[in-house]
Amino acid sequence: MRRALQAITSNLAASTGQLYRRRLPSVPRTDTLPERLLIHRYFFFSAERSPPITISTINPKVLSCDSAVHGEIVTRAKRLQQILLTKPSDLPFSEVLALCDHPELLDKGEVHGLFSLDSITRAKSIMKSIPGRTVGGYSDSKGIRSLRAAIAEGIGIRDGFSGNMEDIFLTDGASSGVHMMMRLMITSDRDGILCPIPHDPLYSASIALQGGALVPYYLNESTGWSLDVNELRLRLEAAFAAGIHVRALVVSNPGNPTGQVLADQNQREIIEFCRDEHLLLLADEVYQENIYTNKKYFTSFRKIARSMGYGEDDFNLVSFHSVSKGYYGECGMRGGYMEVTGLDSRVKQQLYKMASVNLCSNVTGQILMSLVMNPPRVGDGSYAHFTEERDNILSSLDQGSKMCVDAFKKMKGVTCNEVEGGLYLFPSIKLPNAALTAARSNGMEADTFYCRKLLDTTGIVTLPGSGFGQVPGTWHFRMTILPSQQKMAEILSRIADFHMKFMNEYRN
Amino acid sequence: MRRALQAITSNLAASTGQLYRRRLPSVPRTDTLPERLLIHRYFFFSAERSPPITISTINPKVLSCDSAVHGEIVTRAKRLQQILLTKPSDLPFSEVLALCDHPELLDKGEVHGLFSLDSITRAKSIMKSIPGRTVGGYSDSKGIRSLRAAIAEGIGIRDGFSGNMEDIFLTDGASSGVHMMMRLMITSDRDGILCPIPHDPLYSASIALQGGALVPYYLNESTGWSLDVNELRLRLEAAFAAGIHVRALVVSNPGNPTGQVLADQNQREIIEFCRDEHLLLLADEVYQENIYTNKKYFTSFRKIARSMGYGEDDFNLVSFHSVSKGYYGECGMRGGYMEVTGLDSRVKQQLYKMASVNLCSNVTGQILMSLVMNPPRVGDGSYAHFTEERDNILSSLDQGSKMCVDAFKKMKGVTCNEVEGGLYLFPSIKLPNAALTAARSNGMEADTFYCRKLLDTTGIVTLPGSGFGQVPGTWHFRMTILPSQQKMAEILSRIADFHMKFMNEYRN
Repeated sequence: MRRALQAITSNLAASTGQLYRRRLPSVPRTDTLPERLLIHRYFFFSAERSPPITISTINPKVLSCDSAVHGEIVTRAKRLQQILLTKPSDLPFSEVLALCDHPELLDKGEVHGLFSLDSITRAKSIMKSIPGRTVGGYSDSKGIRSLRAAIAEGIGIRDGFSGNMEDIFLTDGASSGVHMMMRLMITSDRDGILCPIPHDPLYSASIALQGGALVPYYLNESTGWSLDVNELRLRLEAAFAAGIHVRALVVSNPGNPTGQVLADQNQREIIEFCRDEHLLLLADEVYQENIYTNKKYFTSFRKIARSMGYGEDDFNLVSFHSVSKGYYGECGMRGGYMEVTGLDSRVKQQLYKMASVNLCSNVTGQILMSLVMNPPRVGDGSYAHFTEERDNILSSLDQGSKMCVDAFKKMKGVTCNEVEGGLYLFPSIKLPNAALTAARSNGMEADTFYCRKLLDTTGIVTLPGSGFGQVPGTWHFRMTILPSQQKMAEILSRIADFHMKFMNEYRN
Repeated sequence: MRRALQAITSNLAASTGQLYRRRLPSVPRTDTLPERLLIHRYFFFSAERSPPITISTINPKVLSCDSAVHGEIVTRAKRLQQILLTKPSDLPFSEVLALCDHPELLDKGEVHGLFSLDSITRAKSIMKSIPGRTVGGYSDSKGIRSLRAAIAEGIGIRDGFSGNMEDIFLTDGASSGVHMMMRLMITSDRDGILCPIPHDPLYSASIALQGGALVPYYLNESTGWSLDVNELRLRLEAAFAAGIHVRALVVSNPGNPTGQVLADQNQREIIEFCRDEHLLLLADEVYQENIYTNKKYFTSFRKIARSMGYGEDDFNLVSFHSVSKGYYGECGMRGGYMEVTGLDSRVKQQLYKMASVNLCSNVTGQILMSLVMNPPRVGDGSYAHFTEERDNILSSLDQGSKMCVDAFKKMKGVTCNEVEGGLYLFPSIKLPNAALTAARSNGMEADTFYCRKLLDTTGIVTLPGSGFGQVPGTWHFRMTILPSQQKMAEILSRIADFHMKFMNEYRN
């Protein structure tokens, strides 16, 4: 558990910090100049010994990509590292990984004193199934066959409809899979992707890097961040009228940063919408284990589509999953998969080729992903202990989220929806005009101004809503529910204190 | 050592197999059609329920990317897995990784029976330096600070000019770094990259995915695959005349697939050329530990530039390194780094942002990369044993390469340069006209035809030269020097036998 919670703290750091908002003035490209001028430029450059790669000659798509650069703020966020719990991990995953990394241990008697029987058996069986019996070799570009089979089996158990290992592409975290799909679909700024507002900035960054069009649809904050299919339809039509060919719909369930869990009926409507409009559904289901409500539960889009009678080939769906969330939170291992169903086999072949350009995802991450999809089951020696640990972590997240919501509801000018799932909440703050003016005169978005002040005053790192998208004129911030209850109480009390002073300072 | 050699065998599999050469007929893009037609198309599509993503609507850059899809041939290559040596690994790297994966071990007394003192000390010091003391958290997007510092220190020891941790970007293998650099530089098919012929297909695939122009320069086979700066100049001028703006020069040293090691004087000329022509030098130095000649040694481009008096900011150089080669061969761990020197700090900031879009590279791979750059040193308990293991592996590779060269030289119509470094050789085969005709009638390149026949007859997997580039009308294949001497003797005898029969069958 220490591992999971430490991971979680780093994750907190990763989820926070300032955004790249600077857009550099565009410099005229010389590509399109007549050759005569090119020659002139060439010699001019030669004479000046100007550096080969400058900020004005790099790919403008790179410049235009807005990314929540977590690296930049790690230093600041380190102050929060005391949130760490120090109870050692009892999740069996790290034992299995250590044994796979150094399988010589498996032949030694002393290993039984150090590792659980479960983990030893599991590691032996995994190593036996890996070609060459080592994690040190390149794997198949889609991932190791036996691990894909284990993941497909886990998906089958989850959904009640058996999975197919040939649909699984193991990836370095979910983000690599998202980039692959965007690269596959986007050929110009006329190719659009329907994306929720607010959304995980990964999607806007990836679409910008490929030079595509982000077609926004708004989640309804006043009805618990609900997703209305009529809104999708309106936005699709508007994009169409503007000459944008919408290729896919991104849905995050449970939602990041919004924390809502979709109801089955809503998912059915989304599936019909995608079928009617010939859209590929990109289902971001990385928070599938993070559910904190008794009223709703996670159901995969795959299961819903199958329950509606659609077969493997009838519905175009890519589902993303990751080892970085859930109760395991092993973000540093960079494990993930995407399950690709319904796509033409020639398109899947192209995806396979793209995967092969990077050779393969890291094998330790692959193993961990297979463990996450096949946790200890009834009958396994470690089952009781494992479920206790898992439930403790999930229940701590649940309680943290409820503490946050309660605290935010009490703050003046703040509203906050319940957290049904995921790892974040996204409260709305009604900022007084004086704060808006002060932000403007500091050259910042108003929510960035608020978050920056919060950080400087309290050391607490939150991310301004403008990085995720929001209804113009509204202001939000994203906060994670990861800290332990004790730390959370302290954090919330500091935020409440800061908020009161801030609202007083800038009151109208 | 088992681990390293198993890795090496998978690496063999990875380096072989058929290439994607199929180019699909180009389909007119509808993006450029007038809106009226778009509407027509839209409704047409709606009526037909055509799938959202088809082979004719995906990104044409993906289609045009030629990649040696190793995934595809893993099944075939599995036959070669008996090459495996079964001696257990004594390299200390995997011990350290296991301890970092499950650091609870470090607190237990029994660990001393299972792990060397060196590895325990090293793992403790690494874990102490990682924020959160876990490999389970996201790291800084450039990689963990202490590991970058260790790598910079290792670079300083290697070169005699101290390294700077801020220049280091840890990556998932060297290929991620290459993709980042190509994405940074290439904005259209007017942006060119000077690439050796033959070259690692990673470069052509990456340039194609970004839609840039590969500007070829030819290595001179008759003088041991030497790199002539006049050839570079001619090719640059030709590209310039064709309206291509060349941004960078790729140099592979030691060469893949060609096995040559550059002389210092040659490196100095290359550096001056890049400075004169304002080119960024992309130095693929992943085989720096794989040297098999007493006449030459590996010197990094960085060291040469510094020896010439250029400071950190005077020369634009990106050097790539990886944990997948050398004597360690841990390809499945996906560890690597690029060292970026001389670039404008604003450009480096953009690279940092690009790295952050993928959050971070896998932490286990990061740790391994730092170990590779800081192997046991004189005075460490495991030093003697480590050097013995390393030297055994390198000497086995050396002997394997010499066995290959000798055998190929004896085959009719085959010539082969010495292998000075790297993991491959690239013999030339003079194929008889009848073989060329037979290949054509099978719709294959002549070397693909040869390699396919070799595979089907003997089970030995080699890669046809056409995937790497070669002087038109010449034919080659790439073979790895990884198999042990015993297996290598068997492989070479089977190839000689096959070759004789092939040449007889198709003799003019």
